[in-house]
Formats: sequence, C-alpha cells, structure tokens
Amino acid sequence: MIDKLIEKIQKTGAPIVVGLDPMMKFVPEHIKKTAFAQKGETLEGAAEAVWLFNKEIIDKTYDLIPAVKPQIAMYEQFGIPGLCAFKRTLEYCKEKGLVVIGDVKRGDIGSTSAAYAAAHLGKVQVGSSLCAAFDEDFATVNPYLGSDGVQPFIDVCREQQKGIFVLVKTSNPSSGEFQDRMVSTGTAAGNAGGITFSEQALYELVGMKVEEWGAQLMGRKGYSSVGAVVGATYPEQGKVLRKVMPHAFILVPGYGAQGASGKDLVHFFDENRLGAIVNSSRGIIAAYQSEKYSSFGAEHFADASRQAVLDMIADIHQAFAEAGR
Amino acid sequence: MIDKLIEKIQKTGAPIVVGLDPMMKFVPEHIKKTAFAQKGETLEGAAEAVWLFNKEIIDKTYDLIPAVKPQIAMYEQFGIPGLCAFKRTLEYCKEKGLVVIGDVKRGDIGSTSAAYAAAHLGKVQVGSSLCAAFDEDFATVNPYLGSDGVQPFIDVCREQQKGIFVLVKTSNPSSGEFQDRMVSTGTAAGNAGGITFSEQALYELVGMKVEEWGAQLMGRKGYSSVGAVVGATYPEQGKVLRKVMPHAFILVPGYGAQGASGKDLVHFFDENRLGAIVNSSRGIIAAYQSEKYSSFGAEHFADASRQAVLDMIADIHQAFAEAGR
Repeated sequence: MIDKLIEKIQKTGAPIVVGLDPMMKFVPEHIKKTAFAQKGETLEGAAEAVWLFNKEIIDKTYDLIPAVKPQIAMYEQFGIPGLCAFKRTLEYCKEKGLVVIGDVKRGDIGSTSAAYAAAHLGKVQVGSSLCAAFDEDFATVNPYLGSDGVQPFIDVCREQQKGIFVLVKTSNPSSGEFQDRMVSTGTAAGNAGGITFSEQALYELVGMKVEEWGAQLMGRKGYSSVGAVVGATYPEQGKVLRKVMPHAFILVPGYGAQGASGKDLVHFFDENRLGAIVNSSRGIIAAYQSEKYSSFGAEHFADASRQAVLDMIADIHQAFAEAGR
Repeated sequence: MIDKLIEKIQKTGAPIVVGLDPMMKFVPEHIKKTAFAQKGETLEGAAEAVWLFNKEIIDKTYDLIPAVKPQIAMYEQFGIPGLCAFKRTLEYCKEKGLVVIGDVKRGDIGSTSAAYAAAHLGKVQVGSSLCAAFDEDFATVNPYLGSDGVQPFIDVCREQQKGIFVLVKTSNPSSGEFQDRMVSTGTAAGNAGGITFSEQALYELVGMKVEEWGAQLMGRKGYSSVGAVVGATYPEQGKVLRKVMPHAFILVPGYGAQGASGKDLVHFFDENRLGAIVNSSRGIIAAYQSEKYSSFGAEHFADASRQAVLDMIADIHQAFAEAGR
C-alpha cells in the first residue's frame, strides 16, 4: 500500500493529506440548515451535515491530492449515524481514487488488536462469507501495548496489502510527558557478549521498533507499509526520528492551524521529496473561516479549501526549493 | 460514577466485571444458525448473532454482578451493524441496572479526545439539541499522548458523572516493551530548591499521573472516578501501583483465560475488599467451551456462564479469606 501512496504523491506532486475532521463548528450554516431540515437536530441531522460538507470538499480537492485522513472521533461522536457518514466518506474517497488513511489510533492486546485490524483494514469471517467492515487503506495505531498489540495489524496489512502509521511523537503540547522521557535500554554488545546500557527518549525507542516492525512490509520504493506519526510541531525530535527510522514513511500532523509551515518540514523528506506526507485538517476544511480566505464566503467554502490546498502545496515546494531539494 | 460502581459491588458482593467480548468462535452454532437464517452470512447476521449471544448471558448473570465491560473492537469488526449491536448491548445492560464500562481504549490530542469523550461518555450539541451517541458509564483511555489527551475525558466525566480507567500496565505478554522501561524523572526537592533525579518504570510514572488526574474527580468513598487498568498477570507491578495510586480504582484484566486466579489479585484490594474490579471475558462468556463446564452443553451456554460467575466470585472470596481480609 505504501507504493500506491508514493505513486499518488508523485503523480500529484503533493506530499499532503487532507484531514477530514468535520467538527460541527466548521460546517457552514447553509449546510446545517439543509441537513437539519431533512433529518432534524439529531445525530442523523449532524451526520448528514458532515457528509454534505465532506462531499463538497472532496469534489473540489480530489484531483490535487493523493490522500485523505478522516479522523474517526469526529464521526463517532455522532454515534451510529456518524459512523455511517464515516463509511460513506471512505467509500466516496475511494471512488475518487484517493488513498484513505483512517485516523483511528486503535491499539489493544493481541486478539483485540486483531479485531480492530479486521475492522479497519481487513475482512472478517461470517459463516462461509468474508465481509469487510470499514476497509480503509491505512490506519493509525497506538503503540503503548507493545509488539503484540501492533503485530496483528501488520499481519492484516500483509494479507490485504494495507498499511499503518504508528504513533511515535505526537503533535500536541503534552506529548512529551511520556514520549520524551529518557529510558534506559540494554543492548547486547556484539561479539564481546556483554550488555551495554544507553539512554534515549521513549519516542526514539518506539521509532526503533517501528523500523524493526517495518522490515516485514517493505515496498518496492525504499519505504515500508509500517509508517510513523511524528508531529511537525517538534522539528528536533523529527530530525532524530528521520534517522532512526530510515524506511518509515512519516505522517506529519501539525501543519497550519497547529503552527508549523513548510520550512519546518523539509527534514522529514528524502532527496527525492519522498518519505513523508503532511496533514492539514482545519487549515483546509475550515479555510473559509480564516482571515486569509474569508473573501470566498461560507457559500463557497469548498473553493476556499481548494485554494488552501494549492497554497499548501506551493508552500512545501518553496521550502523544498529553498533547501535545494 | 465510581460511587455507583462501589455501591453495586457492595450490594452484589462481587468485585467482578463480565467482559462482553463476543468473538464469533465463542457463539454457539444454534445461535449463529438462527441469526444467519434471519439476516444471512453478512455483517448484519454476525451482529444479530452477537446480540442474541450477549442477551442470553446478560439475562443469566445480571443479578450476580455489578458491571459489564463490552470490548468495542469485537463489535467494530462487524462494521455499522456490529456497532448497532454494541449500542443495543449497552442499552440492555443499563436497563438491567448494570454499570457499563466501554472498553474502547481511545485517546488522541485535545479536541479529538474531546470528541471521543463526547461519543462515549458525554453529549454532543446538534443545533439546539443535545444528543448522546453511545453513553457508557466508564470508558478505558490510552495515556500515550499525555495529559492534554486525557483531560477532555475528565472534563466530560465531571459534567456527566462518568468515569474512566486509564491504561497503566496492560496484561499482555509484550506490555513491558515500553511500559516497564525505566525512565528518569526530575522532581523539585522541596525547600532546598534543587532538582533530584530518580528512576522509575514508565508504568509507575503513568500511575502517578493517574493519581494526580484523579484528584479532580474524587468520590465519597475514598476512590476517584479516574481509575487505572493494571493486568492481573503482573502481580509485582500491581503491588507497586496499588501504592502509587491509593485513590485509583483498578480495573484488572487477565483473570482466568489469561492465567491469573484469585490469590494473584488480593493485593489490588484494600482491607474493605474494595479498590479493584476484576474482569473475566472468555472465562465467563465461553465457559461452556471449557472442560470444566462442558457438561452444560452449547444449548445451555448461558447457564455455564452463570456457574462460571459464581465460581469466580467464590474464588475471589476464598482468596480474601486466606489473606485475612
């Protein structure tokens, strides 16, 4: 699956992903009005509003981008109707040829992770039938439970040609609380047979594991279908992690609304402008609400999103050019 | 919400929770046959089988137990129909007066955690209406993203009188890979004004945070509505954590099928036999498949579950007695 994502990035020249995280406050009034008129001020109404909002953004941006990343929490909060809108969004994006990264941050112990992997990337046996539940192309995975919580996802990825991005260093302010802690690690000291201890941050250790897990799913273009999430908001940690995980494609949140711009991102990429894909959510989908794109107006919110995508691509290309890539 | 759980535990004399984790292989053939005849070998058919299976187990055990813990992954794998069965199960359990712990292991950055908290414990604003999506009593939460990923859950718990259990030390074999790492922690050395550094395991550090977060949601019976998940399979770590988090109610997985028995659990409890609630999933719901309860037969699977609940309660009481509690 990583090869397909890379091909799409090369074709569009856009190492970016649009985060479809439709909070109600991003949805223009005229869309809410239509949706609530049809389905009431109910979970069904909210889900309809989300779907109408997403569809228009997808229609106006799909030709520019390789991938989308719907954040399932924003759908799950609207219960079953919300999850129907999530599924409908996935299916529509796939129809449009987009790679779909389900930002689900699942992770549990063995058999339970296997069920999550089946839910989001695989198929499930029902009697003599094989059925698919959500069927994203990639899913994000939380590593706190260790290898036996991640391996079931890798097994399903191998079987179904899918991929994962494992949380390594997240973009939020308190991500360092646990992730930046220095941990002791013992490593066998080669031929000497002794044990040496060194110190590294927890995120580095998780990054090393991602590199190790990724060896099982190497693609043809130098990257593995086991990728990593590393926030743009922590450039120093990002530089370390780029070296620790040379074969991990990095999904980078934190661009735009969270504060990072193109120049903060160059170090995530290799000399071929590959190796990373940068997410922007509200900076794209709620562009019309920002000063910069306010002239579009709420009626033309999706045109504002299109312009924001074009500007984001230009920003990253300029950063590449300035860095001589 | 922790007070309500404690009252239910005292009333039933059963510090246990039944894990409603209905893997297809646990569902008896006659139930699958009925469900598939109605809805086909489809996600709908699987969801119907899960619901019929759950209902019979709930009907046969609800009077003995304070709480259930449905594992959402087992429903999510059956897509939208599966999540409908999850919701139906929650609602039925609440009708029966059971406390419902949604084992969802969610966790993300601020606004996204807020959406998950709304989905599982809170309400969501739709126009001028407030709607509830899943509405469990407790949810399990993954701490890897730090305080700003956990706080939105605490805020919703305060508002809605709900609770959470934060993953601290999980029961799976590779839980130590990250959780057991020794981390350096700096602490201000009181009046001296200096900084001293000490080493502790990551799970201890997370436990300390749970205790700190929990101060915001103290109940009337000495425990907080911010609890912790600590696997029965790691008794030594459990003893440490009981001391580190004196106000955290501990949700203990790992009993039965994962290897732990009553005597491995006593240290989680206080002198009033409170402070912990022990989960068993397959040991109860798939009891009929084990040697010990095979005489019940698949037709009477729920009677086997009832007997397994009675035996689990007796086992824990015996362990209390042997420990002089």
